[in-house]
Amino acid sequence: MRQSTLFTKTRREDPANEESINAKLLIRGGFIHKEMAGVYTLLPLGLRVFNNIMGIIREEMNGIGGQEMLMTTLQDPDLWKKTGRWTEEGANAHNGLPWFKTKLSTGNELGIANTHEETLTNILRGHISSYKDLPCYMYQFQNKFRNELRAKSGIMRAREFVMKDLYSFSKTEEEFREFYEACASAYLRIFSRLGLGDRTYRTFASGGAFSKFSDEFQTLSEAGEDIIYIAKEKNIAINKEVFTDDVLAEMNVKREEFEEYKAIEVGNIFPLGTKYSETLGLLYRTEQGTEKPVVMGSYGIGVGRAMGTIVEALHDERGIVWPASVAPFQVHIIVLQGGEQEAEKLYQALEKQGTETLLDDREDKTPGERFADADLIGIPVRIVVSAKTVAMSLGELKKRTEKEPEMIPLNAIPAFFTQS
Amino acid sequence: MRQSTLFTKTRREDPANEESINAKLLIRGGFIHKEMAGVYTLLPLGLRVFNNIMGIIREEMNGIGGQEMLMTTLQDPDLWKKTGRWTEEGANAHNGLPWFKTKLSTGNELGIANTHEETLTNILRGHISSYKDLPCYMYQFQNKFRNELRAKSGIMRAREFVMKDLYSFSKTEEEFREFYEACASAYLRIFSRLGLGDRTYRTFASGGAFSKFSDEFQTLSEAGEDIIYIAKEKNIAINKEVFTDDVLAEMNVKREEFEEYKAIEVGNIFPLGTKYSETLGLLYRTEQGTEKPVVMGSYGIGVGRAMGTIVEALHDERGIVWPASVAPFQVHIIVLQGGEQEAEKLYQALEKQGTETLLDDREDKTPGERFADADLIGIPVRIVVSAKTVAMSLGELKKRTEKEPEMIPLNAIPAFFTQS
Repeated sequence: MRQSTLFTKTRREDPANEESINAKLLIRGGFIHKEMAGVYTLLPLGLRVFNNIMGIIREEMNGIGGQEMLMTTLQDPDLWKKTGRWTEEGANAHNGLPWFKTKLSTGNELGIANTHEETLTNILRGHISSYKDLPCYMYQFQNKFRNELRAKSGIMRAREFVMKDLYSFSKTEEEFREFYEACASAYLRIFSRLGLGDRTYRTFASGGAFSKFSDEFQTLSEAGEDIIYIAKEKNIAINKEVFTDDVLAEMNVKREEFEEYKAIEVGNIFPLGTKYSETLGLLYRTEQGTEKPVVMGSYGIGVGRAMGTIVEALHDERGIVWPASVAPFQVHIIVLQGGEQEAEKLYQALEKQGTETLLDDREDKTPGERFADADLIGIPVRIVVSAKTVAMSLGELKKRTEKEPEMIPLNAIPAFFTQS
Repeated sequence: MRQSTLFTKTRREDPANEESINAKLLIRGGFIHKEMAGVYTLLPLGLRVFNNIMGIIREEMNGIGGQEMLMTTLQDPDLWKKTGRWTEEGANAHNGLPWFKTKLSTGNELGIANTHEETLTNILRGHISSYKDLPCYMYQFQNKFRNELRAKSGIMRAREFVMKDLYSFSKTEEEFREFYEACASAYLRIFSRLGLGDRTYRTFASGGAFSKFSDEFQTLSEAGEDIIYIAKEKNIAINKEVFTDDVLAEMNVKREEFEEYKAIEVGNIFPLGTKYSETLGLLYRTEQGTEKPVVMGSYGIGVGRAMGTIVEALHDERGIVWPASVAPFQVHIIVLQGGEQEAEKLYQALEKQGTETLLDDREDKTPGERFADADLIGIPVRIVVSAKTVAMSLGELKKRTEKEPEMIPLNAIPAFFTQS
C-alpha cells in the first residue's frame, strides 16, 4: 500500500485523557481512534493487526476442533433470568459482568451481550440430544459490551470489545478435562505466536461461582491490573486471589519460592460444570439410555486486549515493535530523493510475491519525519532507498528490533522475505 | 468437513412464527437460529455463506479504492445532537432509523449505532485538512441496530444486522460523481457475483433529506417490500415513491412503458452533499488556499439482507439453490452402503486440492433423509458414492440446478472442480 493514500496520519503529541501506553502509541501511530472512554474505532492500520491476531486465534481454535459461528448482541432477558444473571446483583454474584441494557420500541427490555453462555446453551438444546452429538466445541469472534465504571487501560479494558469465546460441551468430566488441557496448550501456542510466549504464564486462579479453580493466562507487564506469584524454576504461577497457605500446601510448594509480578490477564479458561446445562435444560441421552446434563467449559481471549498487551510488551521509546506475525505490513520502504524509480520497482516485486509492503511515498514529509513515523508504526523491516543506495545498487535494510542497518543488493531483497 | 461432526441439524417442519421463505429455509437447513424477532445467530453453515458474501463485497470495495476500518457500536450522543439525529423525531425527519439507546453506569445516555455518518465524519476531522488528503473512501462491515416496530421478513429486515457501509469524501461534486458511478458499477458486479444479476436493477429513488435523488439496487422478488416500475427495453427502473409525471417527463419516458414489480432493496447509494461536513466541520484547504466543506456520499449493502435475498430468489420446493460463489461448500458427497472407502478417498482428494467439501458420513440417516438434506442445504454439486457406483468406478454427480445426474469416473471428479 502507498502511504500517501493511507487516510490515517501519525501524530507527535500524546493524546489527551489517555494514561496507558497502548492507547497512546496506537493513537499516535494511527491504529485506533478514541470514541469515548473504553470505546475505540479500528482505523485501517489497526484493523490489519486485529485481523492478523484473529487469524492466529482462529487457526488454533480450528486446530482443536472448534467450529466458528456468530451469536447476537441483542439478548432476550428471559434466558438470563433463568440463570440469575439478569439483575446487577445476580451478575455480580457470578462473575460480575456489568450489563448495558436497552429497550424495544414496545418497551420490553433487552440485554446487550456481555457474554454468551446462556445464549449458546439454549441454541444447543435444539441440536444436542444424544451422546452421538457430543463432544462439540463452538466459538465466535463477537462484540462484548461491559458497563465498566472505569476504563483507563486503553484497548485492554474496553466497554466494547471483540472477544473470541469458545464453549465446550462434553459428555463427562473426563472428556471435558481432555479438551480443557488441549485448549490450554492451544492458548500457549497462540500467545507464543503473538510474540508474548516468553512472558506469558498459565496461572492458577479462582474458579468464581463455577468451580474451585480456573486457569488464567497472564502476561508480565507493569501495565497489568493483576498481581501473580511465580516460581520460575518450577514454572508455576498463582494469582494473588488464591495465593493462600491452603493452596500452596495443596500444590506442595513454599511461599518463599515465589516472586511477585504485575501481569495482564490475556486469556482465561473456565470449567463451568453443569451449572448452565442443568439450569437451562441441556441434557443428552447416554449410550445406556439415561439422561444427563452436558459438562461445559468456557475459553476466552479478548482480541483488543491481546493487541494492547503486545504494544505494552513490545515497544521502545520510539514506538511499537510489532512481531512479524501480527504486523500491519512486513516491510516499510522509505523513498528518499533519487530512489523513487528503484523503490517503485522493489515495491512492485514485493507486492507481486505477496509480501505486504507499505511504501512511504509521501512528498510532504522530511526524511526525519519518515524515519520517526516508521519507528512509531513499528513494521518489522524498514528499507531505505535513496540516490546514494541506488548508486551502489543497494537498499539499506534495518530490522525494527535492531540498531544497525545492513546494506543488501536491491535485487536480493525480495528473496530475503520469502526465505524468512 | 464431515457432516457427522457439524453440530447443527436440519429439520423437516417449518419453524413457528416465521412468515418469510428465507427464514424458514435457513432455519430448517441449520444456517441460522432465531434469538427473537429480527435477531438471528449465524450457525457454522450460515457463517460460511455470510463470509463468502462479505468476501465478494470486500474485493469489489477494495477494487474501487475502499479502505477497510471498523467503527464502534456505542455512540456518543453529542455528535448526533449536532446533526439533529439524536431524537426520534430528528432521526425520522432524515431517513427514519429508529435508535436503540442505552446508559453508562453514570446514567449518561449512549446510542447503539444505527448508522455511522456522524462517527466517520468526526474521525476524519483529525485526518483530512488539505486537498492532498482527498478523495478518500472508507468502509466497514459493522453491526447496525434498528429498533424496527415489525420484523417479519426474516434476515432481510433485522433489528441487528451486519452492513457494509462505505463513505466517500471528495473535493468537488464532480469528483464525487465519478466515484458514485464507479461504486454503482461495483454494486452491479457484486449482485451479479451473488447470483442476482439477472433480476437486480439500479433504480431511481428519492434522495431523502440529503439530495433530490438517490439510487437503489432492487432485486425482483415476491418477498419484496418495495414497488418499482421497470421499462425493460430501456433498462430503466424507478421506485414507486418517485414514479411521478414530473420525474417521467424529466427522464423523457412514458408511464405506459413501465411494468410494476415487487422488489427487495439489496443496496443503496446516496449523495450526502455537504450536510455532515458542514454541520460537523469537516473542511479542507483547496489548492488556492480557501476552505471548503468535503463532498460526501454513503453506500450500503446489508450482508444478511443479501443472503436472505439470494434464498428468496434461488430456491425450489425442496430447498435452497446456492450459487457456487457463496455456497457453504462446493461439493456434497453422500456415502451410501459399500461406498465408504471410495467416498473417503474422494473427500481427501477434493480437500487436498482446496475444493470445499461436505462429506455426509452420518450413520443414523436413511438415504432418503440424506438426499432431502442435501437438497435443503443446497450445495451446488452432489456426488453419490455407493456399492453400485463403486463397482463401475463411477460417482453419480448431480448439480442442484439440474434434474438428472450424470455418471463420472471417480478419478476424474477432482479435475471437474478445478476446471469449472
